[in-house]
Amino acid sequence: MRRKPNPDQRRRELCDTAIRLLADEGVKGVSHLKVDRKADVPDGTTSFYFRTRSALLQAVAIRISELDLKDLTAAARTQSSPAAATADQPSALATLVMRSARGARLVRTKARYELALQAVRDPLLDEAFRSYRDQFHALIRDVVMQLRPAEDDPDQALADRQAYVVMMFISGVMQASASGDRRIRSAEELDALISGIVAGVGSSAALRK
Amino acid sequence: MRRKPNPDQRRRELCDTAIRLLADEGVKGVSHLKVDRKADVPDGTTSFYFRTRSALLQAVAIRISELDLKDLTAAARTQSSPAAATADQPSALATLVMRSARGARLVRTKARYELALQAVRDPLLDEAFRSYRDQFHALIRDVVMQLRPAEDDPDQALADRQAYVVMMFISGVMQASASGDRRIRSAEELDALISGIVAGVGSSAALRK
Repeated sequence: MRRKPNPDQRRRELCDTAIRLLADEGVKGVSHLKVDRKADVPDGTTSFYFRTRSALLQAVAIRISELDLKDLTAAARTQSSPAAATADQPSALATLVMRSARGARLVRTKARYELALQAVRDPLLDEAFRSYRDQFHALIRDVVMQLRPAEDDPDQALADRQAYVVMMFISGVMQASASGDRRIRSAEELDALISGIVAGVGSSAALRK
Repeated sequence: MRRKPNPDQRRRELCDTAIRLLADEGVKGVSHLKVDRKADVPDGTTSFYFRTRSALLQAVAIRISELDLKDLTAAARTQSSPAAATADQPSALATLVMRSARGARLVRTKARYELALQAVRDPLLDEAFRSYRDQFHALIRDVVMQLRPAEDDPDQALADRQAYVVMMFISGVMQASASGDRRIRSAEELDALISGIVAGVGSSAALRK
Protein backbone atom coordinates (compact mmCIF):
# COMPACT_ATOMS: atom_id res chain seq x y z
CA MET A 1 0.00 0.00 0.00
CA ARG A 2 1.23 3.44 -0.92
CA ARG A 3 1.75 5.62 2.13
CA LYS A 4 -0.64 8.56 2.19
CA PRO A 5 1.30 11.76 1.55
CA ASN A 6 0.99 14.59 4.05
CA PRO A 7 -1.25 17.52 3.04
CA ASP A 8 1.57 19.90 2.08
CA GLN A 9 3.23 17.28 -0.05
CA ARG A 10 -0.11 16.45 -1.68
CA ARG A 11 -0.74 20.13 -2.46
CA ARG A 12 2.68 20.40 -4.09
CA GLU A 13 2.07 17.29 -6.18
CA LEU A 14 -1.31 18.57 -7.37
CA CYS A 15 0.27 21.95 -8.26
CA ASP A 16 3.04 20.21 -10.20
CA THR A 17 0.43 18.26 -12.13
CA ALA A 18 -1.46 21.50 -12.87
CA ILE A 19 1.82 23.02 -14.12
CA ARG A 20 2.10 20.22 -16.69
CA LEU A 21 -1.53 20.74 -17.76
CA LEU A 22 -0.96 24.50 -18.11
CA ALA A 23 2.09 23.92 -20.30
CA ASP A 24 0.34 21.36 -22.49
CA GLU A 25 -3.14 22.82 -22.81
CA GLY A 26 -3.05 26.39 -21.50
CA VAL A 27 -5.23 27.91 -18.79
CA LYS A 28 -8.37 26.49 -20.35
CA GLY A 29 -6.92 22.97 -19.93
CA VAL A 30 -6.87 23.22 -16.14
CA SER A 31 -9.82 21.92 -14.13
CA HIS A 32 -10.03 20.16 -10.79
CA LEU A 33 -11.10 16.92 -12.40
CA LYS A 34 -8.35 16.99 -15.05
CA VAL A 35 -5.75 17.47 -12.31
CA ASP A 36 -7.24 14.51 -10.38
CA ARG A 37 -7.10 12.25 -13.42
CA LYS A 38 -3.61 13.29 -14.52
CA ALA A 39 -2.23 13.03 -10.96
CA ASP A 40 -3.88 9.62 -10.64
CA VAL A 41 -5.71 10.48 -7.41
CA PRO A 42 -9.41 9.89 -6.56
CA ASP A 43 -11.88 12.29 -8.21
CA GLY A 44 -12.54 15.18 -5.85
CA THR A 45 -9.04 15.28 -4.34
CA THR A 46 -8.03 18.55 -6.01
CA SER A 47 -11.36 20.17 -5.04
CA PHE A 48 -10.74 19.11 -1.45
CA TYR A 49 -7.37 20.89 -1.32
CA PHE A 50 -8.29 23.89 -3.51
CA ARG A 51 -11.95 24.84 -3.27
CA THR A 52 -12.16 27.10 -6.31
CA ARG A 53 -10.40 27.22 -9.68
CA SER A 54 -9.00 30.60 -8.72
CA ALA A 55 -7.56 29.14 -5.48
CA LEU A 56 -5.93 26.35 -7.52
CA LEU A 57 -4.37 28.76 -10.03
CA GLN A 58 -3.17 31.00 -7.20
CA ALA A 59 -1.49 28.04 -5.50
CA VAL A 60 0.16 27.11 -8.80
CA ALA A 61 1.47 30.69 -9.25
CA ILE A 62 2.99 30.53 -5.77
CA ARG A 63 4.49 27.08 -6.46
CA ILE A 64 6.07 28.29 -9.75
CA SER A 65 7.40 31.46 -8.09
CA GLU A 66 8.94 29.53 -5.20
CA LEU A 67 10.65 27.03 -7.51
CA ASP A 68 11.95 29.85 -9.75
CA LEU A 69 13.10 31.86 -6.75
CA LYS A 70 14.98 28.86 -5.36
CA ASP A 71 16.78 28.39 -8.69
CA LEU A 72 17.63 32.07 -8.96
CA THR A 73 18.87 32.22 -5.37
CA ALA A 74 21.16 29.26 -6.05
CA ALA A 75 22.41 30.97 -9.23
CA ALA A 76 23.11 34.22 -7.37
CA ARG A 77 25.02 32.31 -4.70
CA THR A 78 27.09 30.31 -7.22
CA GLN A 79 27.93 33.45 -9.14
CA SER A 80 29.11 35.40 -6.11
CA SER A 81 31.38 32.56 -4.94
CA PRO A 82 35.12 33.30 -5.15
CA ALA A 83 35.53 30.34 -7.54
CA ALA A 84 33.07 31.83 -10.05
CA ALA A 85 35.05 35.08 -10.30
CA THR A 86 38.09 33.34 -11.71
CA ALA A 87 36.58 30.33 -13.53
CA ASP A 88 36.32 30.64 -17.30
CA GLN A 89 32.75 29.37 -17.59
CA PRO A 90 29.31 30.83 -18.31
CA SER A 91 27.58 32.83 -15.58
CA ALA A 92 25.12 30.99 -13.35
CA LEU A 93 22.42 33.38 -14.62
CA ALA A 94 22.97 32.45 -18.27
CA THR A 95 23.14 28.76 -17.39
CA LEU A 96 19.84 29.04 -15.52
CA VAL A 97 18.11 30.87 -18.40
CA MET A 98 19.29 28.26 -20.91
CA ARG A 99 18.02 25.45 -18.69
CA SER A 100 14.66 27.23 -18.25
CA ALA A 101 14.29 27.63 -22.00
CA ARG A 102 14.48 23.96 -22.94
CA GLY A 103 13.98 20.42 -21.75
CA ALA A 104 12.01 19.53 -18.65
CA ARG A 105 12.25 23.05 -17.18
CA LEU A 106 10.52 24.53 -20.24
CA VAL A 107 7.27 23.10 -18.86
CA ARG A 108 7.45 25.49 -15.91
CA THR A 109 8.41 28.42 -18.15
CA LYS A 110 5.40 27.84 -20.39
CA ALA A 111 3.08 27.48 -17.39
CA ARG A 112 4.43 30.76 -15.98
CA TYR A 113 3.60 32.68 -19.17
CA GLU A 114 0.13 31.17 -19.36
CA LEU A 115 -0.60 32.26 -15.79
CA ALA A 116 1.05 35.67 -16.19
CA LEU A 117 -1.39 36.50 -18.99
CA GLN A 118 -4.29 35.15 -16.97
CA ALA A 119 -3.24 37.34 -14.02
CA VAL A 120 -4.42 40.43 -15.92
CA ARG A 121 -7.95 39.11 -15.44
CA ASP A 122 -7.57 37.53 -12.00
CA PRO A 123 -6.69 39.82 -9.07
CA LEU A 124 -5.80 36.92 -6.73
CA LEU A 125 -3.40 35.50 -9.28
CA ASP A 126 -1.91 38.92 -9.92
CA GLU A 127 -1.40 39.37 -6.19
CA ALA A 128 0.32 35.97 -5.95
CA PHE A 129 2.86 36.90 -8.64
CA ARG A 130 3.23 40.47 -7.39
CA SER A 131 4.21 39.30 -3.91
CA TYR A 132 7.37 37.70 -5.39
CA ARG A 133 8.25 40.47 -7.85
CA ASP A 134 10.46 42.49 -5.48
CA GLN A 135 12.43 39.42 -4.41
CA PHE A 136 13.06 38.49 -8.05
CA HIS A 137 14.10 42.00 -8.92
CA ALA A 138 16.49 42.24 -5.95
CA LEU A 139 18.10 38.89 -6.85
CA ILE A 140 18.51 39.78 -10.52
CA ARG A 141 20.02 43.12 -9.50
CA ASP A 142 22.56 41.27 -7.33
CA VAL A 143 23.47 38.98 -10.21
CA VAL A 144 23.70 41.85 -12.71
CA MET A 145 25.89 43.86 -10.33
CA GLN A 146 28.43 41.04 -10.54
CA LEU A 147 28.41 41.24 -14.35
CA ARG A 148 29.04 45.00 -14.46
CA PRO A 149 32.35 46.31 -15.73
CA ALA A 150 34.55 47.27 -12.77
CA GLU A 151 34.69 50.93 -13.86
CA ASP A 152 30.89 51.37 -13.76
CA ASP A 153 29.35 53.98 -11.52
CA PRO A 154 28.25 52.18 -8.31
CA ASP A 155 25.06 54.26 -8.54
CA GLN A 156 21.97 52.32 -7.36
CA ALA A 157 19.61 53.88 -9.90
CA LEU A 158 21.90 52.76 -12.73
CA ALA A 159 22.13 49.22 -11.31
CA ASP A 160 18.33 49.16 -11.23
CA ARG A 161 18.16 50.21 -14.89
CA GLN A 162 20.69 47.59 -15.91
CA ALA A 163 18.83 44.91 -13.97
CA TYR A 164 15.53 46.02 -15.53
CA VAL A 165 16.88 45.85 -19.09
CA VAL A 166 18.46 42.42 -18.50
CA MET A 167 15.18 41.21 -16.95
CA MET A 168 13.16 42.40 -19.97
CA PHE A 169 15.67 40.84 -22.38
CA ILE A 170 15.63 37.50 -20.53
CA SER A 171 11.85 37.60 -20.38
CA GLY A 172 11.73 38.11 -24.17
CA VAL A 173 14.18 35.26 -24.73
CA MET A 174 12.23 32.90 -22.48
CA GLN A 175 8.92 33.88 -24.05
CA ALA A 176 10.39 33.22 -27.52
CA SER A 177 11.78 29.89 -26.29
CA ALA A 178 8.35 28.94 -25.00
CA SER A 179 7.15 29.42 -28.60
CA GLY A 180 9.94 27.25 -30.01
CA ASP A 181 12.63 29.86 -30.83
CA ARG A 182 16.18 28.47 -30.53
CA ARG A 183 18.36 31.30 -31.81
CA ILE A 184 20.65 31.44 -28.77
CA ARG A 185 22.65 28.25 -28.79
CA SER A 186 24.70 28.35 -25.62
CA ALA A 187 25.03 29.94 -22.20
CA GLU A 188 28.33 31.48 -23.42
CA GLU A 189 26.52 33.23 -26.27
CA LEU A 190 23.81 34.45 -23.90
CA ASP A 191 26.47 35.71 -21.49
CA ALA A 192 28.16 37.73 -24.22
CA LEU A 193 24.82 39.39 -25.03
CA ILE A 194 23.99 40.09 -21.36
CA SER A 195 27.45 41.57 -20.73
CA GLY A 196 27.05 43.75 -23.83
CA ILE A 197 23.65 44.97 -22.62
CA VAL A 198 24.91 45.73 -19.10
CA ALA A 199 27.97 47.59 -20.40
CA GLY A 200 25.96 49.47 -23.04
CA VAL A 201 23.23 50.65 -20.67
CA GLY A 202 25.96 51.66 -18.23
CA SER A 203 27.95 53.71 -20.73
CA SER A 204 24.91 55.34 -22.36
CA ALA A 205 23.86 56.50 -18.87
CA ALA A 206 27.39 57.88 -18.34
CA LEU A 207 27.20 59.77 -21.65
CA ARG A 208 24.04 61.57 -20.63
CA LYS A 209 25.58 62.95 -17.42
CA MET B 1 -30.90 50.67 -43.28
CA ARG B 2 -27.21 49.92 -42.72
CA ARG B 3 -25.43 49.09 -45.95
CA LYS B 4 -24.22 45.49 -46.01
CA PRO B 5 -20.42 45.45 -45.77
CA ASN B 6 -18.45 43.53 -48.39
CA PRO B 7 -17.04 40.13 -47.33
CA ASP B 8 -13.46 41.32 -46.80
CA GLN B 9 -14.60 44.23 -44.68
CA ARG B 10 -16.87 41.92 -42.69
CA ARG B 11 -14.02 39.48 -42.06
CA ARG B 12 -11.84 42.32 -40.79
CA GLU B 13 -14.59 43.56 -38.47
CA LEU B 14 -15.14 40.10 -37.03
CA CYS B 15 -11.39 39.66 -36.50
CA ASP B 16 -11.20 43.05 -34.75
CA THR B 17 -14.02 41.98 -32.46
CA ALA B 18 -12.21 38.70 -31.73
CA ILE B 19 -9.08 40.74 -30.89
CA ARG B 20 -11.04 42.61 -28.21
CA LEU B 21 -12.40 39.32 -26.82
CA LEU B 22 -8.90 37.82 -26.73
CA ALA B 23 -7.56 40.83 -24.83
CA ASP B 24 -10.44 40.82 -22.34
CA GLU B 25 -10.99 37.12 -21.76
CA GLY B 26 -8.06 35.22 -23.27
CA VAL B 27 -8.18 32.43 -25.83
CA LYS B 28 -10.88 30.62 -23.87
CA GLY B 29 -13.14 33.70 -24.26
CA VAL B 30 -13.28 33.41 -28.05
CA SER B 31 -16.11 31.48 -29.66
CA HIS B 32 -18.04 32.06 -32.88
CA LEU B 33 -21.19 32.98 -30.97
CA LYS B 34 -19.41 35.40 -28.62
CA VAL B 35 -17.90 37.19 -31.61
CA ASP B 36 -21.38 37.39 -33.23
CA ARG B 37 -22.92 38.88 -30.09
CA LYS B 38 -20.10 41.34 -29.41
CA ALA B 39 -19.95 42.44 -33.07
CA ASP B 40 -23.73 42.85 -33.03
CA VAL B 41 -24.30 40.67 -36.10
CA PRO B 42 -26.82 37.80 -36.54
CA ASP B 43 -25.93 34.52 -34.80
CA GLY B 44 -24.07 32.31 -37.24
CA THR B 45 -22.30 35.14 -39.08
CA THR B 46 -18.83 34.35 -37.72
CA SER B 47 -19.30 30.61 -38.43
CA PHE B 48 -20.24 31.51 -42.01
CA TYR B 49 -16.98 33.40 -42.58
CA PHE B 50 -14.71 31.15 -40.48
CA ARG B 51 -15.82 27.55 -40.42
CA THR B 52 -13.73 26.33 -37.49
CA ARG B 53 -12.39 27.93 -34.33
CA SER B 54 -8.88 27.26 -35.61
CA ALA B 55 -9.68 29.10 -38.89
CA LEU B 56 -10.98 32.06 -36.88
CA LEU B 57 -7.87 32.23 -34.66
CA GLN B 58 -5.64 31.89 -37.72
CA ALA B 59 -7.42 34.81 -39.41
CA VAL B 60 -7.02 36.88 -36.24
CA ALA B 61 -3.26 36.09 -36.12
CA ILE B 62 -2.95 37.29 -39.73
CA ARG B 63 -4.99 40.43 -38.99
CA ILE B 64 -2.82 41.30 -35.96
CA SER B 65 0.39 40.63 -37.91
CA GLU B 66 -0.72 42.83 -40.83
CA LEU B 67 -1.71 45.72 -38.56
CA ASP B 68 1.57 45.44 -36.61
CA LEU B 69 3.58 45.19 -39.83
CA LYS B 70 1.87 48.31 -41.22
CA ASP B 71 2.76 50.25 -38.06
CA LEU B 72 6.34 49.02 -38.09
CA THR B 73 6.76 49.79 -41.79
CA ALA B 74 5.53 53.34 -41.18
CA ALA B 75 7.94 53.66 -38.23
CA ALA B 76 10.87 52.42 -40.33
CA ARG B 77 10.00 54.92 -43.07
CA THR B 78 9.65 57.85 -40.64
CA GLN B 79 12.94 57.00 -39.01
CA SER B 80 14.90 56.80 -42.25
CA SER B 81 13.58 60.18 -43.47
CA PRO B 82 16.22 62.95 -43.65
CA ALA B 83 14.15 64.99 -41.16
CA ALA B 84 14.36 62.24 -38.50
CA ALA B 85 18.16 62.19 -38.62
CA THR B 86 18.44 65.77 -37.45
CA ALA B 87 15.30 66.21 -35.32
CA ASP B 88 15.77 66.01 -31.56
CA GLN B 89 12.86 63.69 -30.86
CA PRO B 90 12.36 60.05 -29.90
CA SER B 91 12.86 57.38 -32.55
CA ALA B 92 9.79 56.16 -34.42
CA LEU B 93 10.52 52.67 -33.02
CA ALA B 94 10.40 53.82 -29.39
CA THR B 95 7.28 55.88 -30.08
CA LEU B 96 5.59 52.85 -31.60
CA VAL B 97 6.53 50.56 -28.69
CA MET B 98 5.20 53.10 -26.18
CA ARG B 99 1.93 53.38 -28.08
CA SER B 100 1.63 49.58 -28.29
CA ALA B 101 2.15 49.25 -24.56
CA ARG B 102 -0.75 51.41 -23.44
CA GLY B 103 -4.15 52.80 -24.37
CA ALA B 104 -6.22 51.45 -27.22
CA ARG B 105 -3.27 49.71 -28.88
CA LEU B 106 -2.63 47.64 -25.76
CA VAL B 107 -5.68 45.56 -26.73
CA ARG B 108 -3.85 44.30 -29.81
CA THR B 109 -0.65 43.67 -27.84
CA LYS B 110 -2.51 41.54 -25.28
CA ALA B 111 -4.32 39.61 -28.03
CA ARG B 112 -0.98 38.93 -29.75
CA TYR B 113 0.52 37.39 -26.59
CA GLU B 114 -2.56 35.27 -25.97
CA LEU B 115 -2.38 33.87 -29.51
CA ALA B 116 1.41 33.47 -29.46
CA LEU B 117 1.11 31.13 -26.48
CA GLN B 118 -1.76 29.28 -28.12
CA ALA B 119 0.36 28.84 -31.28
CA VAL B 120 2.54 26.30 -29.44
CA ARG B 121 -0.47 23.98 -29.49
CA ASP B 122 -1.96 24.96 -32.88
CA PRO B 123 0.15 24.32 -36.01
CA LEU B 124 -2.08 26.51 -38.26
CA LEU B 125 -1.76 29.42 -35.87
CA ASP B 126 1.97 28.90 -35.58
CA GLU B 127 2.27 28.88 -39.38
CA ALA B 128 0.26 32.14 -39.60
CA PHE B 129 2.66 33.93 -37.21
CA ARG B 130 5.74 32.29 -38.69
CA SER B 131 4.92 33.55 -42.18
CA TYR B 132 5.37 37.15 -40.95
CA ARG B 133 8.41 36.56 -38.75
CA ASP B 134 11.05 37.22 -41.43
CA GLN B 135 9.39 40.47 -42.51
CA PHE B 136 9.29 41.68 -38.90
CA HIS B 137 12.89 40.74 -38.34
CA ALA B 138 14.05 42.48 -41.54
CA LEU B 139 12.16 45.67 -40.62
CA ILE B 140 13.48 45.74 -37.06
CA ARG B 141 16.99 45.19 -38.41
CA ASP B 142 16.54 48.21 -40.71
CA VAL B 143 15.37 50.33 -37.81
CA VAL B 144 18.17 49.14 -35.52
CA MET B 145 20.77 49.79 -38.23
CA GLN B 146 19.77 53.45 -38.11
CA LEU B 147 20.28 53.52 -34.36
CA ARG B 148 23.82 52.07 -34.51
CA PRO B 149 26.79 54.24 -33.65
CA ALA B 150 28.46 55.43 -36.89
CA GLU B 151 31.73 53.65 -36.00
CA ASP B 152 30.06 50.22 -35.74
CA ASP B 153 31.25 47.40 -37.94
CA PRO B 154 28.84 47.22 -40.93
CA ASP B 155 28.95 43.44 -40.53
CA GLN B 156 25.56 41.82 -41.26
CA ALA B 157 25.90 39.11 -38.60
CA LEU B 158 26.45 41.79 -35.97
CA ALA B 159 23.44 43.80 -37.19
CA ASP B 160 21.36 40.63 -36.89
CA ARG B 161 22.54 40.12 -33.30
CA GLN B 162 21.77 43.71 -32.39
CA ALA B 163 18.32 43.44 -33.98
CA TYR B 164 17.68 40.16 -32.15
CA VAL B 165 18.61 41.59 -28.75
CA VAL B 166 16.48 44.71 -29.31
CA MET B 167 13.58 42.50 -30.43
CA MET B 168 13.84 40.33 -27.31
CA PHE B 169 14.08 43.41 -25.07
CA ILE B 170 11.06 45.06 -26.72
CA SER B 171 9.14 41.79 -26.50
CA GLY B 172 9.88 41.63 -22.75
CA VAL B 173 8.81 45.26 -22.27
CA MET B 174 5.57 44.74 -24.18
CA GLN B 175 4.82 41.52 -22.34
CA ALA B 176 5.38 43.28 -19.01
CA SER B 177 3.17 46.17 -20.18
CA ALA B 178 0.44 43.71 -21.08
CA SER B 179 0.58 42.63 -17.42
CA GLY B 180 0.36 46.21 -16.16
CA ASP B 181 4.05 47.15 -15.75
CA ARG B 182 4.71 50.87 -16.32
CA ARG B 183 8.36 51.27 -15.43
CA ILE B 184 9.40 52.96 -18.69
CA ARG B 185 7.74 56.35 -18.65
CA SER B 186 8.59 57.86 -22.04
CA ALA B 187 9.76 57.11 -25.56
CA GLU B 188 12.92 59.14 -24.78
CA GLU B 189 13.73 56.85 -21.86
CA LEU B 190 13.11 53.77 -24.02
CA ASP B 191 15.34 55.22 -26.76
CA ALA B 192 18.19 55.72 -24.32
CA LEU B 193 17.92 52.05 -23.28
CA ILE B 194 17.71 50.79 -26.89
CA SER B 195 20.73 52.88 -27.93
CA GLY B 196 22.66 51.56 -24.94
CA ILE B 197 21.78 47.97 -25.88
CA VAL B 198 22.74 48.44 -29.54
CA ALA B 199 26.05 50.09 -28.66
CA GLY B 200 26.82 47.55 -25.94
CA VAL B 201 26.16 44.48 -28.09
CA GLY B 202 28.22 46.13 -30.84
CA SER B 203 31.23 46.86 -28.67
CA SER B 204 31.18 43.52 -26.84
CA ALA B 205 31.27 41.82 -30.27
CA ALA B 206 34.21 44.04 -31.23
CA LEU B 207 36.06 43.04 -28.05
CA ARG B 208 35.78 39.36 -28.85
CA LYS B 209 37.47 39.73 -32.25
